[in-house]
Amino acid sequence: MLKIYLSGEIHTDWRERIIAGADGLDISFSAPVTDHAASDDCGVAILGDEADKYWHDHKGAMVNAIRTRKGIAEADIVVVRFGDKYKQWNAAFDAGYAAALGKSLIVLQPAEHDHALKEVNAAALAVAREPEQVVDILRYVLDGALPG
Amino acid sequence: MLKIYLSGEIHTDWRERIIAGADGLDISFSAPVTDHAASDDCGVAILGDEADKYWHDHKGAMVNAIRTRKGIAEADIVVVRFGDKYKQWNAAFDAGYAAALGKSLIVLQPAEHDHALKEVNAAALAVAREPEQVVDILRYVLDGALPG
Amino acid sequence: MLKIYLSGEIHTDWRERIIAGADGLDISFSAPVTDHAASDDCGVAILGDEADKYWHDHKGAMVNAIRTRKGIAEADIVVVRFGDKYKQWNAAFDAGYAAALGKSLIVLQPAEHDHALKEVNAAALAVAREPEQVVDILRYVLDGALPG
Amino acid sequence: MLKIYLSGEIHTDWRERIIAGADGLDISFSAPVTDHAASDDCGVAILGDEADKYWHDHKGAMVNAIRTRKGIAEADIVVVRFGDKYKQWNAAFDAGYAAALGKSLIVLQPAEHDHALKEVNAAALAVAREPEQVVDILRYVLDGALPG
Amino acid sequence: MLKIYLSGEIHTDWRERIIAGADGLDISFSAPVTDHAASDDCGVAILGDEADKYWHDHKGAMVNAIRTRKGIAEADIVVVRFGDKYKQWNAAFDAGYAAALGKSLIVLQPAEHDHALKEVNAAALAVAREPEQVVDILRYVLDGALPG
Amino acid sequence: MLKIYLSGEIHTDWRERIIAGADGLDISFSAPVTDHAASDDCGVAILGDEADKYWHDHKGAMVNAIRTRKGIAEADIVVVRFGDKYKQWNAAFDAGYAAALGKSLIVLQPAEHDHALKEVNAAALAVAREPEQVVDILRYVLDGALPG
Amino acid sequence: MLKIYLSGEIHTDWRERIIAGADGLDISFSAPVTDHAASDDCGVAILGDEADKYWHDHKGAMVNAIRTRKGIAEADIVVVRFGDKYKQWNAAFDAGYAAALGKSLIVLQPAEHDHALKEVNAAALAVAREPEQVVDILRYVLDGALPG
Amino acid sequence: MLKIYLSGEIHTDWRERIIAGADGLDISFSAPVTDHAASDDCGVAILGDEADKYWHDHKGAMVNAIRTRKGIAEADIVVVRFGDKYKQWNAAFDAGYAAALGKSLIVLQPAEHDHALKEVNAAALAVAREPEQVVDILRYVLDGALPG
Repeated sequence: MLKIYLSGEIHTDWRERIIAGADGLDISFSAPVTDHAASDDCGVAILGDEADKYWHDHKGAMVNAIRTRKGIAEADIVVVRFGDKYKQWNAAFDAGYAAALGKSLIVLQPAEHDHALKEVNAAALAVAREPEQVVDILRYVLDGALPG
Repeated sequence: MLKIYLSGEIHTDWRERIIAGADGLDISFSAPVTDHAASDDCGVAILGDEADKYWHDHKGAMVNAIRTRKGIAEADIVVVRFGDKYKQWNAAFDAGYAAALGKSLIVLQPAEHDHALKEVNAAALAVAREPEQVVDILRYVLDGALPG
Repeated sequence: MLKIYLSGEIHTDWRERIIAGADGLDISFSAPVTDHAASDDCGVAILGDEADKYWHDHKGAMVNAIRTRKGIAEADIVVVRFGDKYKQWNAAFDAGYAAALGKSLIVLQPAEHDHALKEVNAAALAVAREPEQVVDILRYVLDGALPG
Repeated sequence: MLKIYLSGEIHTDWRERIIAGADGLDISFSAPVTDHAASDDCGVAILGDEADKYWHDHKGAMVNAIRTRKGIAEADIVVVRFGDKYKQWNAAFDAGYAAALGKSLIVLQPAEHDHALKEVNAAALAVAREPEQVVDILRYVLDGALPG
Repeated sequence: MLKIYLSGEIHTDWRERIIAGADGLDISFSAPVTDHAASDDCGVAILGDEADKYWHDHKGAMVNAIRTRKGIAEADIVVVRFGDKYKQWNAAFDAGYAAALGKSLIVLQPAEHDHALKEVNAAALAVAREPEQVVDILRYVLDGALPG
Repeated sequence: MLKIYLSGEIHTDWRERIIAGADGLDISFSAPVTDHAASDDCGVAILGDEADKYWHDHKGAMVNAIRTRKGIAEADIVVVRFGDKYKQWNAAFDAGYAAALGKSLIVLQPAEHDHALKEVNAAALAVAREPEQVVDILRYVLDGALPG
Repeated sequence: MLKIYLSGEIHTDWRERIIAGADGLDISFSAPVTDHAASDDCGVAILGDEADKYWHDHKGAMVNAIRTRKGIAEADIVVVRFGDKYKQWNAAFDAGYAAALGKSLIVLQPAEHDHALKEVNAAALAVAREPEQVVDILRYVLDGALPG
Repeated sequence: MLKIYLSGEIHTDWRERIIAGADGLDISFSAPVTDHAASDDCGVAILGDEADKYWHDHKGAMVNAIRTRKGIAEADIVVVRFGDKYKQWNAAFDAGYAAALGKSLIVLQPAEHDHALKEVNAAALAVAREPEQVVDILRYVLDGALPG
C-alpha cells in the first residue's frame, strides 16, 4: 500500500481531485485539517484562550503539528501543493521536513512559481502542474501503468 | 564551539550584523552563497548551458544544495531569516529541513509575518525580531551572559 | 490509528477518563503497569529475592523498563501526567525519553507546577489541565473536530 | 577526550568539586547556565517581555534548551545530580533524554531518593553518592586507575 | 512474512522463476517496473515532453525512484540480478543502496562476472547462480528446510 | 503484540518450554534454525560445495545471518540462552548485536556463568535461570500479572 | 573543510587533475587504493593464499571495503567517475551506497553513458563531463566563486 | 586518522604487538582496561561494596561499559581477539555490538576456533591469525602498501 500525505494549499479542490482520481488504487491518504477556522483556533478552543494573538496562533500550530508530523513520518510520498495566493510557508516547511526524512517528494505547482520554488523542486522526484498528473504518478508507481 | 547556519533572505545586512555582533565569541558561521546572480547561474556556468529555463534553475539549485546541506547538517543552530519581500520558500524549506534533523531553530522575522509563519515558529526555540537579539541568544548560550 | 502511551501518575483515574472519553476513536492506548505493588515487586517476584532494597527496586525497574520502552517507542503521542504528590521523576524521565525520540508530547498537569515543569513543557506540543482536554486533542488530531 | 555534561541541581558546589577533582584529566565539561535568575529570565530579557508568567517561563526554557540539547548531544557521559530540594523534573527529563540517545548516564543522588529514582537509576551505568565518586569513575574510564 | 525486492536485469524470466518457485511461502515480492518502454518514458508521458534526451531520461528515472526506494526500504532481502548484457549500473546502484541500509543482499549472477562483481559480492550474504537457489534460500530462511 | 527472538543454545528444550508456557499470550516468537546439521550445511547445500571447511562454514553462517538479522531487528525482546556446553559465541554475538540496536535483552543462564557473563548481563534488563521465569516476565510485561 | 571521496575508474589521471585543480582550497581527499594489482591481491597477500579464485577476490574485496566504507562515511561529497571501459559495478555500488547515506553525489562521466547511468544520475546533485568541472563545483561550494 | 578499538583477550601481548607494529602510522588505539583485577573490582572500589558477588560483578561491568561503549562507538575498526582460554563472551558481545553499529570488524583468532566463530567471522571484513596481519591490514588501509 502507498501512504500519501497531501500538504499545502487548502483553498481549492486539488486533494479531492487526487483522491477521486486514485479511486480503486491501493493508497491511503492523509492531510492536515483543512478547515481553516478550526486549524487556526484549535489550540485555544481546546486548551484555553490567550490574550496575545501570537500565543493564540502558537498553541494552534503546536496542536496541528501532532497531526502533521505523524502524517509526514508515516508517508511514502509527500505531495506539496503551492497555489496562487498567500505566503504558504507551511507548505515549504513541510517539503523541507519531508526531504530531510528522505521521503519521496512530489511538488504540485503552477509554472509561474518555477523560479521561486527551484530549491524545493531540486529536492523533489517529480514536479507536476495538475492533480491528475499526481494521480498518474501514483498509478504508475503502484501498477506500472502509463496514462492513455 | 557553536556552529551556526544563517539561512534565508539575502538582500539586507542581517548576516553581517550577526557576525559582527558575535565578534569574539567561539562561533563558526556558514551560509548559502549570497551573490544572487552567482547563485542563480552556478549550475550552467559550471556544467553547461540549458535551453530550458527550468533546467537552468534546476542545475543551479542542485549545486547550491551541496553547500546548503552541509551547512545545515553540521550546524548546532540554524537561523532562518524572513524579510519583507519575495516568496522565500527556500527559507521555509531550510527551516523544515533543519527541524526534521533536530537542529535548534531560531527564526528572525518581522512581526507582520507572525501568523503566516506560525507553523515555522512552532518548530523554533526562539523567534527574534532583530539580528542583535540573535547575537544575544548566541552569547547567552555560550557564556550564560544576558544583555545590559 | 493513533497510538498513545499514557505515562506518569497512577493514583487517580485520569487514564480511565481519557480512554472512556476517546471511546469510538481509532486509538490504541498503552501504559505502564499501574498496580503499585506489582510494579514495585515484579523483579523479585519473578527473578528471586534480593537482600538489599536497592537491588530489589532495581530488578523491578528493569523489568518494567521492558514494557515502558516498547510503549514509548511505538507511540505516536506520549501523554505524561504530573499529579500533586510524590517526586514523579519517572514521569519526567519518560517525557525526556519521548522527546529525544521525537515523539509528540502532551503534558497533563495542574497549573501550580507550571514553573517547575517549564523545561518539560518546552518540549511538549500541548500542555493540558484536564484529561478531557487530552481527549479533545486526540479527537481533533484524528478527525479535525473541535469541541462544543 | 571525554566530554561530560553536568545536569541537574544548581544550589550546591557539586559541579565545582567534580571539575576540580578532574583537574589534569583529558575531559571537557559542559553544563546548563547555573545562574538561577539568568536562567529563568533569559527568554524575556532577550526577546521581550511577556504579560503571562507561563509564556515568560516558556521563552526562557526554550532558549535554555538550545544549550542543553547541544551539551547532551555532544556528551559521552551525562551526569545527573538530584539534591534534597525542589521538584527537579528538568534533571529527570535530561536523564531520560540522554538515555534515549544512548549516552552513558551517571546518577549522583543521596540514598534517600533511591526508591523514587529507581526508574532513572535503571537506565544508568553508575549511581554515585558523592561528586568524588564521579571523579573516580572518570579517572578510571580514562586511565584505568582505581582510587587509593 | 519475508519482503523481497527483486532488482536488476529485466530481459529474462528470473523474477517469474523465483516467484513461481516460492509459491506457498509467506513472502511478498516487489520489483521495479519491468516494461522497458514504460520505464524509459514514464517521466515525459506523465509530466510532459522534454526536448533534451538527458532530461527525458532524468524525469523518468526520478519517477521510477519513487517505486524503487519504497521497494528497497521495505524489503528484508534485496535480490540483485546481473545478466549477460548491458551496463546494468542501476543494479549495482541498488545493491549499494541496499547495503548501506543494512538490508540482507543476495546477488544472482553468472560465474563469469565474479571478478567484476567482487565488491558487490563482498556486501552480500549469498551469491547464487540460478533463481532456484534464491528460492531455496528463501525457503530455508523461512522454514529451515533444505532442498532435496 | 510482543515479538520475541529466542537466541542461543539449541540442545535443550528451553524454547519449547517458553513457547508452551506463553500459550494464550499475544506473542510472536522467532528463532534461528535449530536443526544443527541443516544450520551447518545450508550454505553448501544450496549454493554449492566448498573444498575448504572454512568457506563451507562461512557460506552457511552468511545464509543463517539472513534469518538471524531479521529476527533480531523485528523483535521487541531478545532472549539469549547460554547453556553448559560449547563456546556459544554466536549467542554472545547476538546479545551484543541486540544491545546495540536498543532491544530489550533477557539473558537466560545458569548461575555458574554469572562471572563470565557479567558484561552481557550488564546490557540486559533481566537475568533469568529458568525458561518459566522468562514466561513470567513476558506475561507481566503484557498483562501486569505476577506469578502465584 | 570539505571532505571528498573519489570513487571509480582507476586507469586515467582524473583524480590527479581534481586534486591539482583544487590546490589551495580547504579540501581533504580520500580514495580507494588505485594500484590495481595491490587492490586485487591485498586479501591473500596479508591473510594467506586461497586455492579458489572466488575467495581470493573475496578476501581482497573485504579488506578494501574497510577503506572504502570509511572514505564514504566521512565524506561530504562523493565523486563517482565512470570511464570508457570495464563493468565498473563497484563505482555504481559506491554511488548507491553514498546515496543511501545522504551524501552529496557528483557523477563524472562521458555523455555516451547518459542513458545507462540515468538512475545513478537521478541520485546526484551534479553530473560533470570533465574533472575541471568538479573542481569548479568544489570551489563554488567553498567560496561562492564561479569560473571565468 | 584511523581509530581502532582492540577488544577481547587480555592475557597475551597481542595489543602491544599491534601497537608497536603500527608505529608511525596515523592511528589512534583504544581498548578496555586490561588490568584484570581493576576491571573486576572497579565498581565496588569506587561506588561501595556489595555483599552479593553478582552485584559486585554487575557494578564493575557497568562502569567498564562506559569505556567500552565510547571506544567502540568512536572506532572505525574494531579488532576482536579470541584466545585459547576462558569463555570470552565479552569479546563476542563486543563483536556483535560493533557489527550492529556497522563498524568494520577484524577477528583475530587461532584456526581451531574457526567453526565455533563462524557466525562472528561472517560479520567480519577480515579474519587474521597473527597480530602482525592486523598491522598489515591497517597499513594497507591507510597507505595502500602491501607487506614484503
